[in-house]
Amino acid sequence: MTRASGDAFSVAVRVYYEDTDAAGVVYYANYLRFMERARSDWLRAQLAGPHELAASDKVLFAVRSVALKFLMPARLDDFLTITAEPTSIRGASLTFYQACWRGKEIMCCGEIDLVCVDAQTFAPRRLPEAIARVLAKTSDL
Amino acid sequence: MTRASGDAFSVAVRVYYEDTDAAGVVYYANYLRFMERARSDWLRAQLAGPHELAASDKVLFAVRSVALKFLMPARLDDFLTITAEPTSIRGASLTFYQACWRGKEIMCCGEIDLVCVDAQTFAPRRLPEAIARVLAKTSDL
Amino acid sequence: MTRASGDAFSVAVRVYYEDTDAAGVVYYANYLRFMERARSDWLRAQLAGPHELAASDKVLFAVRSVALKFLMPARLDDFLTITAEPTSIRGASLTFYQACWRGKEIMCCGEIDLVCVDAQTFAPRRLPEAIARVLAKTSDL
Amino acid sequence: MTRASGDAFSVAVRVYYEDTDAAGVVYYANYLRFMERARSDWLRAQLAGPHELAASDKVLFAVRSVALKFLMPARLDDFLTITAEPTSIRGASLTFYQACWRGKEIMCCGEIDLVCVDAQTFAPRRLPEAIARVLAKTSDL
Repeated sequence: MTRASGDAFSVAVRVYYEDTDAAGVVYYANYLRFMERARSDWLRAQLAGPHELAASDKVLFAVRSVALKFLMPARLDDFLTITAEPTSIRGASLTFYQACWRGKEIMCCGEIDLVCVDAQTFAPRRLPEAIARVLAKTSDL
Repeated sequence: MTRASGDAFSVAVRVYYEDTDAAGVVYYANYLRFMERARSDWLRAQLAGPHELAASDKVLFAVRSVALKFLMPARLDDFLTITAEPTSIRGASLTFYQACWRGKEIMCCGEIDLVCVDAQTFAPRRLPEAIARVLAKTSDL
Repeated sequence: MTRASGDAFSVAVRVYYEDTDAAGVVYYANYLRFMERARSDWLRAQLAGPHELAASDKVLFAVRSVALKFLMPARLDDFLTITAEPTSIRGASLTFYQACWRGKEIMCCGEIDLVCVDAQTFAPRRLPEAIARVLAKTSDL
Repeated sequence: MTRASGDAFSVAVRVYYEDTDAAGVVYYANYLRFMERARSDWLRAQLAGPHELAASDKVLFAVRSVALKFLMPARLDDFLTITAEPTSIRGASLTFYQACWRGKEIMCCGEIDLVCVDAQTFAPRRLPEAIARVLAKTSDL
């Protein structure tokens, strides 16, 4: 796993009660919710939101694998920064390195592999040309 | 609000970390998740699961209103009983009285109003005949 | 239920996949998550975040009842505005009128009653003086 | 990743609307919720529930890493089996291989690493003797 560069795309996330558990920290599955927010907003910034993409191109990005490390627990009221940095695009596949920061401390990080699939059948589909072009250009992969 | 009768339909729910928050108790919105489990299983026991209903009759039950009281906090590892008792069926509408119990203590209770809607447009649709018949018979309303 | 005034406190909420369900709309319990975000940020704007309040004053606000109407379904990618307007403060109790808007359309609205409780025992506790003063002043109740 | 043996500990999970998203399938983060249910019930079957463990031994199991593959999407009403099989115990660390099955089809699988930590400080703590003994005996590691 490599570190995201300083200028990785990011979103801000406030931790509310809904995100925490009885151990007093952010529940581990919720970092995946935070990371999906960053990926969705990254996609929206490049091209279109998930809903528009499903409507216009009949595709969506399904998660194929996650490999995450949980290093420190975030807590109620924390103000986090979630990065999303595409590190590889190949055929139908798209890989992100993502991390969750609290100031200069890293809470959680790792790689998420997605695959472009037909929105109905979930069969893999090559990235639509327009999408691939935008992705290739914006991320310099 | 009236109490559910002793023989109301119910499901058992274990409280896991996912259901709790940093206050050490079940997060308030999660009682609505528990209550939906009971309504879904009640429907499945009478007729068919939500997915089957959407596929065969092109309808689903949308929640129109909730009026709930939160009386005591449930906690991690608690073993709860969630009841679902239909109290009124009229046209497209279906009302449930639901409660969440821990042994003989009541955690949360109230009324949930649902309306039968077209699964695509969310326009109200009269309950399909077969469904209305089953509901009327099984619940003696 | 009365409508919030035009200048009610509000937060913006984007709808992500995490918030939706297989019916293609925001899952009903998730409006309660959105509403808690607005209440938390309102409290933070007036005084302090929930975590700070639990640490300094040993109190938290527990939800005692909700009465909500669901009028229209919000969908993936929608950009919502969630209002939080205190309508009554009395002893340990605090009532909010809250609504969820998409532009000028209202998705969901209603009243949420909270009670100030001891953060450990959940026994009702009169609002700490400093809090009551800020609440009374800022909300003109 | 190795497959769980046929007699791995498992729990049954029904898929409700709460678990699905607008793509019509189980939202990826929710498999982590399902897997935590299996681990919690496994621990409860061996020794004690998470709450009891936090109260008596002042420890909890924090997730340190997850490496999961998502192979097929589960859908509304599906009835799933979630396995939890400890594959390694060492010092404060405990590794599980977990999988999510729908009949003979595997939806999602992978490894979850946990570490025993102090319930207050989250500092790693050697597994309490009684726990280590039970774990070693029951899992033949």
